[in-house]
Amino acid sequence: MPNQANHPLAKPIAEFIGTFFLVLTIGCTVIPGSPGVIPPLAIAAMLMTMIYAFGHISGGHFNPGVTLAVVLRGKCPPRDGVAYVVAQLAGAALAALVVGVLVGYPSAPMAIKDVKAALLAEFLFSFALASVVLHVATARGNAGNSFFGVAIAAVVLAGALSVGGISGGAFNSAVALGAGVMKMVAMGDLWIHVVANLAAGAVAGLLFRAMLPDDR
Amino acid sequence: MPNQANHPLAKPIAEFIGTFFLVLTIGCTVIPGSPGVIPPLAIAAMLMTMIYAFGHISGGHFNPGVTLAVVLRGKCPPRDGVAYVVAQLAGAALAALVVGVLVGYPSAPMAIKDVKAALLAEFLFSFALASVVLHVATARGNAGNSFFGVAIAAVVLAGALSVGGISGGAFNSAVALGAGVMKMVAMGDLWIHVVANLAAGAVAGLLFRAMLPDDR
Amino acid sequence: MPNQANHPLAKPIAEFIGTFFLVLTIGCTVIPGSPGVIPPLAIAAMLMTMIYAFGHISGGHFNPGVTLAVVLRGKCPPRDGVAYVVAQLAGAALAALVVGVLVGYPSAPMAIKDVKAALLAEFLFSFALASVVLHVATARGNAGNSFFGVAIAAVVLAGALSVGGISGGAFNSAVALGAGVMKMVAMGDLWIHVVANLAAGAVAGLLFRAMLPDDR
Amino acid sequence: MPNQANHPLAKPIAEFIGTFFLVLTIGCTVIPGSPGVIPPLAIAAMLMTMIYAFGHISGGHFNPGVTLAVVLRGKCPPRDGVAYVVAQLAGAALAALVVGVLVGYPSAPMAIKDVKAALLAEFLFSFALASVVLHVATARGNAGNSFFGVAIAAVVLAGALSVGGISGGAFNSAVALGAGVMKMVAMGDLWIHVVANLAAGAVAGLLFRAMLPDDR
Repeated sequence: MPNQANHPLAKPIAEFIGTFFLVLTIGCTVIPGSPGVIPPLAIAAMLMTMIYAFGHISGGHFNPGVTLAVVLRGKCPPRDGVAYVVAQLAGAALAALVVGVLVGYPSAPMAIKDVKAALLAEFLFSFALASVVLHVATARGNAGNSFFGVAIAAVVLAGALSVGGISGGAFNSAVALGAGVMKMVAMGDLWIHVVANLAAGAVAGLLFRAMLPDDR
Repeated sequence: MPNQANHPLAKPIAEFIGTFFLVLTIGCTVIPGSPGVIPPLAIAAMLMTMIYAFGHISGGHFNPGVTLAVVLRGKCPPRDGVAYVVAQLAGAALAALVVGVLVGYPSAPMAIKDVKAALLAEFLFSFALASVVLHVATARGNAGNSFFGVAIAAVVLAGALSVGGISGGAFNSAVALGAGVMKMVAMGDLWIHVVANLAAGAVAGLLFRAMLPDDR
Repeated sequence: MPNQANHPLAKPIAEFIGTFFLVLTIGCTVIPGSPGVIPPLAIAAMLMTMIYAFGHISGGHFNPGVTLAVVLRGKCPPRDGVAYVVAQLAGAALAALVVGVLVGYPSAPMAIKDVKAALLAEFLFSFALASVVLHVATARGNAGNSFFGVAIAAVVLAGALSVGGISGGAFNSAVALGAGVMKMVAMGDLWIHVVANLAAGAVAGLLFRAMLPDDR
Repeated sequence: MPNQANHPLAKPIAEFIGTFFLVLTIGCTVIPGSPGVIPPLAIAAMLMTMIYAFGHISGGHFNPGVTLAVVLRGKCPPRDGVAYVVAQLAGAALAALVVGVLVGYPSAPMAIKDVKAALLAEFLFSFALASVVLHVATARGNAGNSFFGVAIAAVVLAGALSVGGISGGAFNSAVALGAGVMKMVAMGDLWIHVVANLAAGAVAGLLFRAMLPDDR
């Protein structure tokens, strides 16, 4: 796509919109207590569609850990990465406020009983998520595919169904911020999600480079 | 596809058939009270398949707000747009009559308790839907992909699971007409869905042009 | 794929295997009474995967009404079509016997209360199914896509969730035969599914030619 | 992708990671007793995403029966195949240990009541799985598609929903090992899954060659 002159703010706007709708869907499905498979399915569906819609502009990260992984892998300039994270956090915060208007906030946040298990769960699925993004959306061997959005959303679906009860299943620092604003997770627990998400993104980025050293 | 001489009515016929099956699926799954995830899943599946089947003929809108967005973005002549909307409304109305034969109509329409919240919910997800259509089905950077139908249907799935209880989750003026005929929504409430759907389509179309000014 | 010399029986074998696993999945999920979304989801998943696996050999019909539609549309020689239908019926019958070994048969078949509604339901969704197949798997405008299997399976998913309670939701004469052998549907009701399936396939084939006369 | 010099251990690492996350998802969704569709949906989603992420490196088998099928079909050197199986078993075993930390193990393994039915069920769906892999991921007629991951995961989804109650629904010797370590299946029953999985992989590999003799 040479010379496609997008608006200079097109990339952060794309990250803002995608993260906004991701957090909006989380709040509107989890807070009213929709049963079982409904919240993870809705959340994964919205993430997928936002990746497909805006991936051609910004890459469709909507997740600071993913942005860190892509920066370390060498496919996102660090300066862009900072703008991405700011846009992600702003989108998440605004969505959290809109959720308050639409469905209100829960009376008490989720209790994370076992911090070590929550850290491990968030790290493992954040690592899977960031690794999948790097391989399906940036690897030379997968160039031009149509499956990148389905693949990325599926990790979040599987992860939320697997460890949602242990850690909340964010796998995303911006989502964690939104969950904090919406009182779904205690502000004092957010470090769990942020540390795990960023550490996992860094490991995924470095492992990608170690496994595929010639794919730059 | 130069010189592919389709029947002169192929485009409106495609819009008619797609909207017919979309509204037929809505009526047959919502009215009998199928629980939880079933109606949104069936509706999204039918929307997806109709987009894939008829997108190569008409673009697969099945939604006046989407048609408005595509007209404003410059990828659908206004005259075609009028024919599309007429076909969409006719398909929705006929499907509503067939649903009456197959499963009957509910005794009372859904009560929309909070009009402001319903307007906001319909606007937000209609905007997401129209934006996704513009980006996955008309943006130069996504040309030739195989994911457009999955991506578009996924917004409807996520939206219906998120705010179906607030507004009914139409995100589509033709679907709203069908829901009115099927007595699922009160005729006096339909303006909510129509105003939100058309306003969202207009905003999506204008934002697309602002973000990607060189993609005409 | 010039000069790809498949085994002379590769096409009917492909139709046999695909229909076998389709009917096997139907029996194993419906007869034990799995609740709600499970049977349609499993059935659609198996249909999708068999279409993707064997579509490159036989087209992946697994359905006499679909075969009739493709023959009328001009993309399957009538002689091949006869072999396809024989293979589909044989695969369905063998699967029905295996289901008897794995989970047994129900004590009483489903009661179809309203024959006219059942005929209408089977006709409408069989028409949608055959039309989708023609457009996603044989239309020039959709050549080379990766979505044909998802699109075709989604009609069956939506249809089974919409009218499964009215007609059983076969949309497929071979599946109807299997359901008859498995005592899920009364043998005396099978004409409903067969007549609707074949009539719908014929209408879909003729409509395709009328809408896209230059796509041969 | 000529001259793409991956790390010499990239292939077994890919098989290790993919099988690790597959078994992790199995343990975390099945052991806590998540109802109905949740475990099969999560497991299929994780399998799909791992295939899309790592298929470009190792082929994305994560299953000794699939590796055997690909070896017999001639698209995986036997020496690589041995390394694959070792990596798959190691990944499954490590995941089983992590599951113990996250959610613990069940007090009693599943009882397989009818060994013949379990063997038949595991054989049939393992055969479907291995055949689908060969056709969607190695057949010349399907080269360059974007659907291989969805298609392969869908067999596992359909199979688990169909015969999970009869045999556990592994269709995978490495998964069976993990299930044994996690005490979900009795160690004395694992031969059922292993024999069926390897026999099915061999039959699928040989049938592929018989049906498509010119596709080498």
